[in-house]
Amino acid sequence: MKYNPLTAEHLKNLQAMVAADRISTGASNLDLHSQDQSQHTAVRPEVVIWPMDRSEVSGIVRYANQNLIPVTGWGSGSSLEGNPIPVQKGIVLDFSQMNRIVAIREEDFQADVEPGVIYQDLNAKLRHKGLFFAPDPGARATLGGIIANNSSGTTTVRYGATKEHILRLTVVLASGEIIEMGTRASKTSSGYDLIHLFVGSEGTLGIVVAATVHLVGLPVEFSAAIVNFPDIQAAGKTVFKIMRSGFDPAALEILDPECVKLINKEKGFNLDISPTLFMEFHGPSKEQLAANMEIVLEVCKEEEGKLFQTGIGRAERNRLFEARHQLGEMIPRNHTGCKTMVVDVAVPISAYPEMIAFARAEADQTGIPAYIFSHSGDGNLHVVFAGKKGDKKEWATLDQVNEHMVYKALSLDGTATGEHGIGLGKRKYMQAEHGRSLEWMKKVKDLFDPNHILNPGKMFP
Amino acid sequence: MKYNPLTAEHLKNLQAMVAADRISTGASNLDLHSQDQSQHTAVRPEVVIWPMDRSEVSGIVRYANQNLIPVTGWGSGSSLEGNPIPVQKGIVLDFSQMNRIVAIREEDFQADVEPGVIYQDLNAKLRHKGLFFAPDPGARATLGGIIANNSSGTTTVRYGATKEHILRLTVVLASGEIIEMGTRASKTSSGYDLIHLFVGSEGTLGIVVAATVHLVGLPVEFSAAIVNFPDIQAAGKTVFKIMRSGFDPAALEILDPECVKLINKEKGFNLDISPTLFMEFHGPSKEQLAANMEIVLEVCKEEEGKLFQTGIGRAERNRLFEARHQLGEMIPRNHTGCKTMVVDVAVPISAYPEMIAFARAEADQTGIPAYIFSHSGDGNLHVVFAGKKGDKKEWATLDQVNEHMVYKALSLDGTATGEHGIGLGKRKYMQAEHGRSLEWMKKVKDLFDPNHILNPGKMFP
Repeated sequence: MKYNPLTAEHLKNLQAMVAADRISTGASNLDLHSQDQSQHTAVRPEVVIWPMDRSEVSGIVRYANQNLIPVTGWGSGSSLEGNPIPVQKGIVLDFSQMNRIVAIREEDFQADVEPGVIYQDLNAKLRHKGLFFAPDPGARATLGGIIANNSSGTTTVRYGATKEHILRLTVVLASGEIIEMGTRASKTSSGYDLIHLFVGSEGTLGIVVAATVHLVGLPVEFSAAIVNFPDIQAAGKTVFKIMRSGFDPAALEILDPECVKLINKEKGFNLDISPTLFMEFHGPSKEQLAANMEIVLEVCKEEEGKLFQTGIGRAERNRLFEARHQLGEMIPRNHTGCKTMVVDVAVPISAYPEMIAFARAEADQTGIPAYIFSHSGDGNLHVVFAGKKGDKKEWATLDQVNEHMVYKALSLDGTATGEHGIGLGKRKYMQAEHGRSLEWMKKVKDLFDPNHILNPGKMFP
Repeated sequence: MKYNPLTAEHLKNLQAMVAADRISTGASNLDLHSQDQSQHTAVRPEVVIWPMDRSEVSGIVRYANQNLIPVTGWGSGSSLEGNPIPVQKGIVLDFSQMNRIVAIREEDFQADVEPGVIYQDLNAKLRHKGLFFAPDPGARATLGGIIANNSSGTTTVRYGATKEHILRLTVVLASGEIIEMGTRASKTSSGYDLIHLFVGSEGTLGIVVAATVHLVGLPVEFSAAIVNFPDIQAAGKTVFKIMRSGFDPAALEILDPECVKLINKEKGFNLDISPTLFMEFHGPSKEQLAANMEIVLEVCKEEEGKLFQTGIGRAERNRLFEARHQLGEMIPRNHTGCKTMVVDVAVPISAYPEMIAFARAEADQTGIPAYIFSHSGDGNLHVVFAGKKGDKKEWATLDQVNEHMVYKALSLDGTATGEHGIGLGKRKYMQAEHGRSLEWMKKVKDLFDPNHILNPGKMFP
């Protein structure tokens, strides 16, 4: 596709659509919208606009479509695969001004939100109502970004990914047309499921301007445990047994020895340097969670698991899981002069030990510091590499290692991305993963966005 | 669309594609494939074919597309909205010969199945592995039908509808092209979610020839309780409280007084003739379920709920829930000379008492026997009417009542169908429910099936 560069006349016309303080071509604003949290190269948009409502979005997108100007949605820039980098320049729509929680329908387990709402802010508002939005991607992500990416996180094993929590969507299509999809009923068999087409489409089919999200009752009580295992096979087998047990784990995170070293150092733990399982459970009372934990620990023992600590109750669980949740900050802190690259693949859970072993062998070959951790109940594995900033050779090596891991995951019937999306980094694997159905994804793209103005350069090879 | 009637030459060509005993134009076979379990008018296909594999399906569909002959998939004929009635005649593909369970991947919580597998047969095979396929539509439905319909049932409140349990699909498109979608990883953020487009599309976008379904660990223990409430508001409020409690109910079924009368009569129960809640819970031990039940019953008491009986353990739960599960048979048995019509709508759960009250008032006006029961945790309500066979006036009244209930549900932000699908009966509400997004459903239909040969006359008004 050929796009038009933004002319002075385009800019004048766009300026007429929004208040003067909500459109900018200033260098710092362009820079702030040129890159996400990934290692991908920054590209500045030509203009940043902060829309206030759906009709502004509609007007801007319609104009962009008529003039072949790219439009890329922007949440908080926390993506990890270059998903919102405006590689074809044009317009970035920053949704931080459309961040109202329009309604909380406590008795329906629902909230109506604008795309710029930060999910932690939503959950803070919901807390005293005893509810929460379950997907937990970790970063300070917006609902719009979470929906565009079908985000998930540590508790997805219990509560599901974003796509399981979206009841209604209002989307601006490439033509500027606004369509509403879905129902406030919690289930439906009416018509084609267009919502799931937009969830995870990374802003390439339409731009979400409103959503009704499904909420979950806050757990009454929490428990957690940290258990060392002699090897990854034993840890993997334990995960399988716990998944089948009926205890409905809220998180099953396996950390590799390198992660454990870091945690011992930073948190003063004295964990064995071996694969370590962080478990979390939610339940109606401390007594029940404690009773269940005894059985879970028996299961761990069957596989030679060695208990480090259990924590019953919210404070205790927080204390134990803090170590897991701070891992993302510990790694860069311990590798100054480095930038991180995060591998994100998922495999069937039986293939999980093989995938981990492969990842470790690949990482060791590079000599580059690498930390493997995983949402193991979902078979979703991350490797965080700390590559030297500006070291082209090292980063070329990392690209290669990433590629090896993706092809290994695909060979195990897995996916190139469990939760970070395709963005820029995973486009080259789309053909290998999807085969002929990729052609149908392209046809769907052509149907909804014939001029390919929406987040161009993403998703497709 | 204009279709071609099946000529002798078409038949000869189709006969060349399959073994002689797997194609029939015999009257009894045409009759058997002319009607589902609904009240909709029977229409005979012109030929029934029992394909054995995907390449046969592909060849037949390609030929049909080239010759503008309608093709309708057939599972077990248990639909309730005329979904598989071949209203434009042509070919019915009966999948009862494609009923192999190809693989059970216990350690991945997955099974690979052909579309003709009956879900109870799958679950019988899975039982000794400690796993089950969770969607439970009730009838002896096939996996293909369940997928086409996005079926659900009593336990959907805990385990989700069919769309939450499909990992991979192989589909024959209208052109005869075979595409595979999805991954065996339990989560993915890779590409557009085509699977959800096909799930619930009622065979109008493509024909499922294989699926990888997600399985769940069998509950270790079960509990149940039956509680009478003074009115529907109290019962509804209790449902909300239990949903938020963290006890994760496996079924929350409210039965109206008419259902209760029938159950008292047939099962020898002595329930008060008032709205009655059937609850089911799954958990790791009888002790825990008993402890939880005490708290649940406290919640019921707060709303003036009066306990009838509790049952802890599988046998006790089965005994209590038998009454609920046999309701579908009790109604016709108690109304000889009648045929049933089932209303199926869903609303946000706060709107549920209002919806019930409306349904009862509408039903009472008709004087026709009506039984209201509901998957109340999902806000999904059914009314079963027993209308006199052949009484045109009565059936015209029932059509009207159905329509009133659908518009009432839509006015409450609900859906025209919670789980039975659009089929023939709900087409006329598609515009009211979906508005402008219906146009996009039509465009998706045109993209995948430009000649509209797949299950024509369904889904769209």
